[in-house]
Amino acid sequence: MIKLSNISTRAPEHLKEKEVRQETEELVDRLGDLQQRMCAEKKHAVLVVLQGMDGSGKDGAAHKVFDGCHITGITYHAFKKPTEEEFAHDFLWRVHKVAPEKGMIGIFNRSHYEDILIQRVHKWIDEKRVEQRMKAINAFEELLAFDNSTHIFKFYMHISYDEQEKQLLQRMREPEKFWKHNPGDWEERKLWDQYMTAYEYAINKSSIPWYICPVDQRWYRDYFIAKTLVDALEKLHMQMPPLATK
Amino acid sequence: MIKLSNISTRAPEHLKEKEVRQETEELVDRLGDLQQRMCAEKKHAVLVVLQGMDGSGKDGAAHKVFDGCHITGITYHAFKKPTEEEFAHDFLWRVHKVAPEKGMIGIFNRSHYEDILIQRVHKWIDEKRVEQRMKAINAFEELLAFDNSTHIFKFYMHISYDEQEKQLLQRMREPEKFWKHNPGDWEERKLWDQYMTAYEYAINKSSIPWYICPVDQRWYRDYFIAKTLVDALEKLHMQMPPLATK
Repeated sequence: MIKLSNISTRAPEHLKEKEVRQETEELVDRLGDLQQRMCAEKKHAVLVVLQGMDGSGKDGAAHKVFDGCHITGITYHAFKKPTEEEFAHDFLWRVHKVAPEKGMIGIFNRSHYEDILIQRVHKWIDEKRVEQRMKAINAFEELLAFDNSTHIFKFYMHISYDEQEKQLLQRMREPEKFWKHNPGDWEERKLWDQYMTAYEYAINKSSIPWYICPVDQRWYRDYFIAKTLVDALEKLHMQMPPLATK
Repeated sequence: MIKLSNISTRAPEHLKEKEVRQETEELVDRLGDLQQRMCAEKKHAVLVVLQGMDGSGKDGAAHKVFDGCHITGITYHAFKKPTEEEFAHDFLWRVHKVAPEKGMIGIFNRSHYEDILIQRVHKWIDEKRVEQRMKAINAFEELLAFDNSTHIFKFYMHISYDEQEKQLLQRMREPEKFWKHNPGDWEERKLWDQYMTAYEYAINKSSIPWYICPVDQRWYRDYFIAKTLVDALEKLHMQMPPLATK
């Protein structure tokens, strides 16, 4: 059972930022190589879920970690408030539609987990619905895994309460970040404890495990995600296919 | 446990064709009324799955039973051999995408069940995959039901071995049916027993129950489906919404 308050939001003490940044660059390149093979082989799909509180660096992670990948092999979806059409369907409908096909890396900035996070914290759904949805999420992710060789990497972007405040304040002080400022984020921040409880439920009830990614230092966030992906994808021993002769 | 060979493929003896046809006309009109209310209320969705052997009258049923419904409130999908894009996703991907939204009746001519029928009979997938897919199908249908108020009606179009032969021969003899003739249907017919076993598995393992619809007489097929839908939808007590005042 994961208890988020027991897990550090910072890089391990022994790490040196400069070295880690250097290594991250290599990992980002390496991820690009792996993606090329995946795209050529078309045997596997990858789904990367970035979930976390406002200011936890989801956009930045998506931008930095996949910098060595070709756009032809990546799909990126940021899930916002559902549209009218999306609301007229079950909560997994809009997500399943854009699940990555074989050969592709799909990045979800927020995801189907919002439907048991924000919706639960605000009590828009009852606890019975939360349980039903959690069960449906597990079945859905297992389906992607067994029936489409989808490797699922879910990162909980673990930010501290204090670091979130810094991030949200920055958005109000730096003109080039004004566009990211949303007064509603301060309202959601008041519900911090309820969000942590809802995240812990989602993480602990998931059949496909989560990675808890410390994000207070952005350089470590990028390293953590890139390292996790590269280590896992290396194990697939993907190869460039031979020249087709017919 | 349903054993198909124990169930008649014909109308109950006491029924008179003329009377049943008359009643069917009324039911078809009534279904149109119910659809109008569903469309106006936007509280429920309906999914009708028509599954059966070649020549079991899936197209005809779709045409006849929904004749009183407006095209604006119906979606119809005939699932054929998957495309390259569909094959690059899990088997439920193409189906989930077109699940009916609230207010709509969605008709599936064949469905996600093909992936544990034809694929199983031809041994394109192993038995473990069949079990995994059956579990995924149950989770998927339950999701549509609990999270989008989707009422699911699955009709197994129950045709006899002899009647199928008649139907397939008709397609070779009547010029206006030539376009329906497919030599491959005769090959599939040789696998009749394997198909029956696969259908029985799908029907008996489903968490949302099936209706076994006797189709040897087409007039009874239409009556059976229309009656089933109308009786169930009447119970929802759908109402036309009052005039909006703001």
